[in-house]
Amino acid sequence: MKLVIAINAKTYYPYSYGSRLLRIARSLDQVAKEYDVRAILAPPNSEIKDVKEVVEKVEVFAQHVDPVEPGAHTGATLLEGIKDYINGSIINHSERQLKLSEIEFVVSKLKKYGLESLVCAPTPKTSAAVAVLEPEMVAMEPPELIGTGISVSKAKPETIVNTVNALKQVNYKGIILVGAGISHGDDVAKALELGAHGVLVASAVVKAEDPYSKIKEFVEAGIHVFDKR
Amino acid sequence: MKLVIAINAKTYYPYSYGSRLLRIARSLDQVAKEYDVRAILAPPNSEIKDVKEVVEKVEVFAQHVDPVEPGAHTGATLLEGIKDYINGSIINHSERQLKLSEIEFVVSKLKKYGLESLVCAPTPKTSAAVAVLEPEMVAMEPPELIGTGISVSKAKPETIVNTVNALKQVNYKGIILVGAGISHGDDVAKALELGAHGVLVASAVVKAEDPYSKIKEFVEAGIHVFDKR
Amino acid sequence: MKLVIAINAKTYYPYSYGSRLLRIARSLDQVAKEYDVRAILAPPNSEIKDVKEVVEKVEVFAQHVDPVEPGAHTGATLLEGIKDYINGSIINHSERQLKLSEIEFVVSKLKKYGLESLVCAPTPKTSAAVAVLEPEMVAMEPPELIGTGISVSKAKPETIVNTVNALKQVNYKGIILVGAGISHGDDVAKALELGAHGVLVASAVVKAEDPYSKIKEFVEAGIHVFDKR
Amino acid sequence: MKLVIAINAKTYYPYSYGSRLLRIARSLDQVAKEYDVRAILAPPNSEIKDVKEVVEKVEVFAQHVDPVEPGAHTGATLLEGIKDYINGSIINHSERQLKLSEIEFVVSKLKKYGLESLVCAPTPKTSAAVAVLEPEMVAMEPPELIGTGISVSKAKPETIVNTVNALKQVNYKGIILVGAGISHGDDVAKALELGAHGVLVASAVVKAEDPYSKIKEFVEAGIHVFDKR
Repeated sequence: MKLVIAINAKTYYPYSYGSRLLRIARSLDQVAKEYDVRAILAPPNSEIKDVKEVVEKVEVFAQHVDPVEPGAHTGATLLEGIKDYINGSIINHSERQLKLSEIEFVVSKLKKYGLESLVCAPTPKTSAAVAVLEPEMVAMEPPELIGTGISVSKAKPETIVNTVNALKQVNYKGIILVGAGISHGDDVAKALELGAHGVLVASAVVKAEDPYSKIKEFVEAGIHVFDKR
Repeated sequence: MKLVIAINAKTYYPYSYGSRLLRIARSLDQVAKEYDVRAILAPPNSEIKDVKEVVEKVEVFAQHVDPVEPGAHTGATLLEGIKDYINGSIINHSERQLKLSEIEFVVSKLKKYGLESLVCAPTPKTSAAVAVLEPEMVAMEPPELIGTGISVSKAKPETIVNTVNALKQVNYKGIILVGAGISHGDDVAKALELGAHGVLVASAVVKAEDPYSKIKEFVEAGIHVFDKR
Repeated sequence: MKLVIAINAKTYYPYSYGSRLLRIARSLDQVAKEYDVRAILAPPNSEIKDVKEVVEKVEVFAQHVDPVEPGAHTGATLLEGIKDYINGSIINHSERQLKLSEIEFVVSKLKKYGLESLVCAPTPKTSAAVAVLEPEMVAMEPPELIGTGISVSKAKPETIVNTVNALKQVNYKGIILVGAGISHGDDVAKALELGAHGVLVASAVVKAEDPYSKIKEFVEAGIHVFDKR
Repeated sequence: MKLVIAINAKTYYPYSYGSRLLRIARSLDQVAKEYDVRAILAPPNSEIKDVKEVVEKVEVFAQHVDPVEPGAHTGATLLEGIKDYINGSIINHSERQLKLSEIEFVVSKLKKYGLESLVCAPTPKTSAAVAVLEPEMVAMEPPELIGTGISVSKAKPETIVNTVNALKQVNYKGIILVGAGISHGDDVAKALELGAHGVLVASAVVKAEDPYSKIKEFVEAGIHVFDKR
């Protein structure tokens, strides 16, 4: 298992689109080549193909996939339409929550195509609940900290410990990510010390003046802890 | 643990309302006194108080509770407003599904008031997922069979077995119900033989010409199996 | 046409339930007998029958009706189940918004049973849009003022004027209500001066120490303006 | 005003994606150059940029825009992110309905960027209701006919007449489209005879063996009627 750094580009305009997003993608790709880490970037749908073209080591994820099969679904994000450009998808982000049956549907569908599921949950217990559906990654993010710049590692370290324990109790063997407010290298280090395998970050990288430096800061802080385990 | 017969009155008009519903409530109460079972009835909100008044042994459940605190929520079903008239609530019925975070919220809120949660899920895996949230009851109902009169026990017995096993794997100690298409005594018997502790039924009782006989048929078939375990 | 005072009880616990709500209902009934006004009270579903029993002149409205026909709709508010206890329903309140097709469905269904529709909208243009569906009443409420105690009459008087004009342009012949933050008699007076036929109020009455006095304050201030028109 | 042919690519896989979609785009562009018509194509988000690159006369529309401002909205379709590649957007398609306040929000936002709104509605009355929000185009589509191959023109001609009349009554000056089941040239001709300015079509073109011929069939049948008016 490797340290995972996953970047959710969200819909920060202009940061999450066009040349700005490609700069983030290239920066992440660069860092991913310099360090032995898994690097994930989740662009808006309209940018997926463009990002895919400029990265080599970065894994491209969708931010969301609609729980539907091919057919008449105006405005939906159909997995089949993007599957050749992605390695997986974020599912159930707190800003795009699904019904439980829909989470199961999307996880299964991704698996069918050999793609990975990164399922978000807001608490330790809900993290364990989604883990039962056997996604490759679970990301615990307390919604009240998302976007605040106050990190889960510092403000709610016990939720990380409780998530790791809750996931053990349901015998989860996959990757454990945490997120919300991750802004500095020590936020990443602390998350890994508490048992996470990586972080899910957004604005701190996406809106950074120098994305390369910010990503490098996160990875260096994280890999230092990760390698000691 | 006792055999559980839970009746979801749904919104079949005129069956689920007024005098027709009270007849069902009284029939269920009668059977509950004749046999050593737990009997649950979930009426529409407008009928909760009336049902509560005519039953002695029957436990009254809400069909749904909105994931909100007291305040400005026009049209919502607020737990506090009905908590003195109910013993618990159905949560996440396939006809009224919630986001995962909302299921956790409602289960916790019911627990806070000493009330029970009967959480529905459509598959074995989602049943295990909701079980992690520690509701008192989990009810597995394949949505494609709900309301068909083709019972889960006969059409999909393996989903019952798989649900019982999936719940064991997450160490669930609560009550396991199954439902969808339960129409005859042998549907109940079969469900219990496969490991369920009870059934969640709707139209078969609610629309029955003689609800008392139908409930009795279900309970007698079930208790026969239950007592042998 | 008469002055309309409509009270949305919402889900303020304990105010909107039980004996507290019945006190509001009786207070409103009392004022409705003292003055030549239309008085509407919209309780939570679980309280509709109890309210109906204690009022004579007050019209009972639902806070919301689900856009469904009788059948398998666990947790839904079915019009048929409550139609004998209500005179109409609030529709599309900003705290319970519907799709446009659902608004049309519910307005039509209420009409079918001889019941009235009080459709809410957040702006002058959306008020005119819903007016096209021919509800008996349109209530314009800027959502950003709801529950603030800062009244639409004082903070956004131009939206009242614009709503009245927009409704004229689509040839709307029904009742025009306004709401949001209505707290004092002069808020009501001002709303009527600007062209409304009445007000939709909530917390100011529901949480009042003396609901009778507050309702009377509203009605007296309103009827004074109304009678001069 | 010109005849409008609008194609909603929906999410028919593989038809609505990649090279198949580009073939449709080029076919439409070809026909748009041959005849004096407005031609609109609404691809899935992931295909918008690719379509934009291969067309000259075709106007590219989004299938849906989320009612949000730039910011943290994982998985959302943000107008700002795609506005440079589109000429407008479909809004409120029956497969992606919005609340009324959201329709107003999206129409206003498109207008702000000089883009056009094509708002769908299922009935004559709801068409008139959305027309009040002043979109450039209103498309009436009875949902029960969508995707059936049974055209609104033949199965429900009176709904077209009623829509045209209802739009006149609210003084709507924009473009009137109709859709649902449009499969043959005479469906288009009939729609125009009854007062529409164009059609909104999907599967008949998107799944056609020869999209160019099908589009040409529609346009020729339509322009014949249109020019006589």
